[in-house]
Amino acid sequence: MIRGKDGSIIPKVVIERLPRYYRYFDWLEDQMEKVSSKKLGELMGSSASQVRLDLSYFGDFGQQGYGYNVTKLKKELARILGIDRQTNFIIVGAGNIGKALVRYDAFFDAGFTLKGIFDIKPSLIGKKINGVTVYHIDDVKSFIKKENIEIAIIAVPKQVANDVAKLLVEGGIKGILNFAPLDLDLPSDFPVENIHIIDKLLALSFIVRHREDE
Amino acid sequence: MIRGKDGSIIPKVVIERLPRYYRYFDWLEDQMEKVSSKKLGELMGSSASQVRLDLSYFGDFGQQGYGYNVTKLKKELARILGIDRQTNFIIVGAGNIGKALVRYDAFFDAGFTLKGIFDIKPSLIGKKINGVTVYHIDDVKSFIKKENIEIAIIAVPKQVANDVAKLLVEGGIKGILNFAPLDLDLPSDFPVENIHIIDKLLALSFIVRHREDE
Repeated sequence: MIRGKDGSIIPKVVIERLPRYYRYFDWLEDQMEKVSSKKLGELMGSSASQVRLDLSYFGDFGQQGYGYNVTKLKKELARILGIDRQTNFIIVGAGNIGKALVRYDAFFDAGFTLKGIFDIKPSLIGKKINGVTVYHIDDVKSFIKKENIEIAIIAVPKQVANDVAKLLVEGGIKGILNFAPLDLDLPSDFPVENIHIIDKLLALSFIVRHREDE
Repeated sequence: MIRGKDGSIIPKVVIERLPRYYRYFDWLEDQMEKVSSKKLGELMGSSASQVRLDLSYFGDFGQQGYGYNVTKLKKELARILGIDRQTNFIIVGAGNIGKALVRYDAFFDAGFTLKGIFDIKPSLIGKKINGVTVYHIDDVKSFIKKENIEIAIIAVPKQVANDVAKLLVEGGIKGILNFAPLDLDLPSDFPVENIHIIDKLLALSFIVRHREDE
């Protein structure tokens, strides 16, 4: 668990909203100098008080009757989120999703440097994808240490995802972004975020179908 | 908003958990005939009472002192989620993410049939990717009607994502899964789910960094 400025525990949902606040401040920067919590709440689909509460965990940013200074708070959020420095990461699995992620150019702008790709397919090892070398998964533990890798993206089939996760944790990885369609078997306090594409699509299609019934 | 069996409004978080329940029942089917809400809660990282409450929105499945019949509830969830029938969808944007998704074979198993890909790049129009034809975005509105498309995946640059969303809604699309890194400007009750890869990675890296400080 993570504590805010005032010592209270920051709820995970608030941490997960933080990048969204950053996106809005980035977008607002070209349009206005200051923004009220009311306006921010409208943009985020929440309330002014929710916005004030969310941001209060991270510092004392707003000024009563003035609002938030957009440029200042954008910079502050960039610092809090670590966008102002580079974090080394690797991608495990050079299948379709893995390969697409290698070419995803938004990572670098957000402060993430892709240092290597890992797979087991002999024909891929030693090749480069978008300028980044593919290594054998057997070398991942030493690579994490040598290259100071903090985060790994798992984009392997679900049948091998837990074996990969185990290797990564043994190698000293600090956080995992998981695209494999299962919940990884990791200690409950290990930092992991999941992107379950099919889950999202199923939830969406449920909502679509049951709206029709109304 | 969507109402459950007993008429109460189903919270969106519960709908979003439903595919995860399905995944666990699918996995449990090879291992046990029945499962208790306690065991399910452990798997899901929640409590037995949360599991009972979640599932109660969709029907009267469990039996006191017996638990849930795994095969029966898996079938029931497949029906509720629409996995037992095919839903037609399209992908807009044949860039890296779009192309990877075209090749993602989990869609069909989950009940989703990819009917077309849309882009604006002249060199792509008329080509096939993994057996699916790429059409010009100008034809998307008539295609949605003609092919009975319910869901669209948006995988275009953020600069054009709102224009694409507008076209899709005009064409009669019923739900959007959005990969573009912004919140689409849609009516607040329009069904949309977002997959914001960078947001997830930023939240993860925040958690990783602040755990270190403990």
